[in-house]
Amino acid sequence: MSAEVWGPRWDSASGLAKQWMEACVTKQSLVILAADRYTMDGLTSLLDEVSEYVVALKTHVDLVVDWTAQAWAVFCEAAHSHGMLIFEDRKFADIGKISRDQMGGVYDIRSWSDLVTAHLISGPDIVTGLQEGWKDVGRNGGVLLLAQMSSRGNLLDEDYTDTVVAVGKENGGVFGFIGNGSQPEGLRELRKQAGNKMIWTPGVNLAIGDGEMGQRYGDPYEAVLAGSDGIIVGSGIHRANDPAHTARAYADASWRGLLERD
Amino acid sequence: MSAEVWGPRWDSASGLAKQWMEACVTKQSLVILAADRYTMDGLTSLLDEVSEYVVALKTHVDLVVDWTAQAWAVFCEAAHSHGMLIFEDRKFADIGKISRDQMGGVYDIRSWSDLVTAHLISGPDIVTGLQEGWKDVGRNGGVLLLAQMSSRGNLLDEDYTDTVVAVGKENGGVFGFIGNGSQPEGLRELRKQAGNKMIWTPGVNLAIGDGEMGQRYGDPYEAVLAGSDGIIVGSGIHRANDPAHTARAYADASWRGLLERD
Repeated sequence: MSAEVWGPRWDSASGLAKQWMEACVTKQSLVILAADRYTMDGLTSLLDEVSEYVVALKTHVDLVVDWTAQAWAVFCEAAHSHGMLIFEDRKFADIGKISRDQMGGVYDIRSWSDLVTAHLISGPDIVTGLQEGWKDVGRNGGVLLLAQMSSRGNLLDEDYTDTVVAVGKENGGVFGFIGNGSQPEGLRELRKQAGNKMIWTPGVNLAIGDGEMGQRYGDPYEAVLAGSDGIIVGSGIHRANDPAHTARAYADASWRGLLERD
Repeated sequence: MSAEVWGPRWDSASGLAKQWMEACVTKQSLVILAADRYTMDGLTSLLDEVSEYVVALKTHVDLVVDWTAQAWAVFCEAAHSHGMLIFEDRKFADIGKISRDQMGGVYDIRSWSDLVTAHLISGPDIVTGLQEGWKDVGRNGGVLLLAQMSSRGNLLDEDYTDTVVAVGKENGGVFGFIGNGSQPEGLRELRKQAGNKMIWTPGVNLAIGDGEMGQRYGDPYEAVLAGSDGIIVGSGIHRANDPAHTARAYADASWRGLLERD
């Protein structure tokens, strides 16, 4: 089933990429939930509601106002037991040595994250540093490099994107790229360049149009058709009246896109 | 004295910039100490040793392994009482809304930092977001944008630098720019473009040459002559046999540079 759905990329994948592909097939979903709640209770209840349809959890550990190491460990164990990857959207952007150490500290990101985001702006040593962070505690992880953003006035122009993808696709520590889910054309280009790496995309919503603060959304099914391997959904799910029902709708749309794309 | 030393920039400065300029004159030093120690005890003893010669403290709160809110508050109060600004080198790099919230959370950076670093990669709304973070707790702060880096393969090329400076110099929330202290030529260019904004520079060492992991250092006096308004020194001071004596040598070199530059 996995080989059929993912095509030739299934055979050449390994490690976390294979784990991701398999988990998507098990849940028939490519949904990453942006768990943007600010309390441990809010996070835990959200997880319980939607775990059936969500394949990875995108966290911002530094936004949680009542964070404690113990409560967080319980939360992460629950997510892992539901077959989810945990993806800390830290947007690391320092030099390699500092980034490695930033994986530790009080939050100890290296000990519970499977994936983290990073900008390539400081150079490729950041990937090495983050990988060493995981190794420091005997774990494996993958880096998602920011290749495209949708925010106003961002500096990820086409040249920048090309450089990130050219460097990242050859780097074994890179799991994939963050693309812009609201721009199918740009995604198609990214897919052509990205080789066997994953593309994960925020900026999708089943109710297309303008989002908060002028953010534009794209259709999740279209994003997957264009090349997204994982759709990142936040308020579209966690502010819905029925998060579980809505999460399922996103799962269905993403799964249909995967089945139908070449 | 301040007007004489800083020249015309003194008259047009206000807020944190003026506070910085004045503190430099009081201590006859332009030294920012990169306080790269990993325990509260290590940080506190370092602060005690060098406070006479250091005008700002560069912190990485997320590297401190025995961090507690209470111990950190005591540490920050001590730094402030010694007339230092506290500069969290967080390298914020998310969109505005998330960056604002990342100023809160458990570390509550907005409540004790006077300055933070950010990349402009996500666009100018990050400056607005960070400023709102400080406003959320009734404080003022300033952003230092990364304009140059020295790390291998970094993507801050000349065009990128020009864009950061053009956007940043017009933004009231921007305190200044991080430049590369090991490249006086590039610093002179940056100084020409940066208007009345500050330029702070890592990458300087009194023992010039190759640093750790291939990092190259420049001379602190040369860096100030070329346009640096603050030299960031880490292991050069905190690994010295006599940190206070060494901090004084850096202070003297930087002060001499300021007195001698046009």
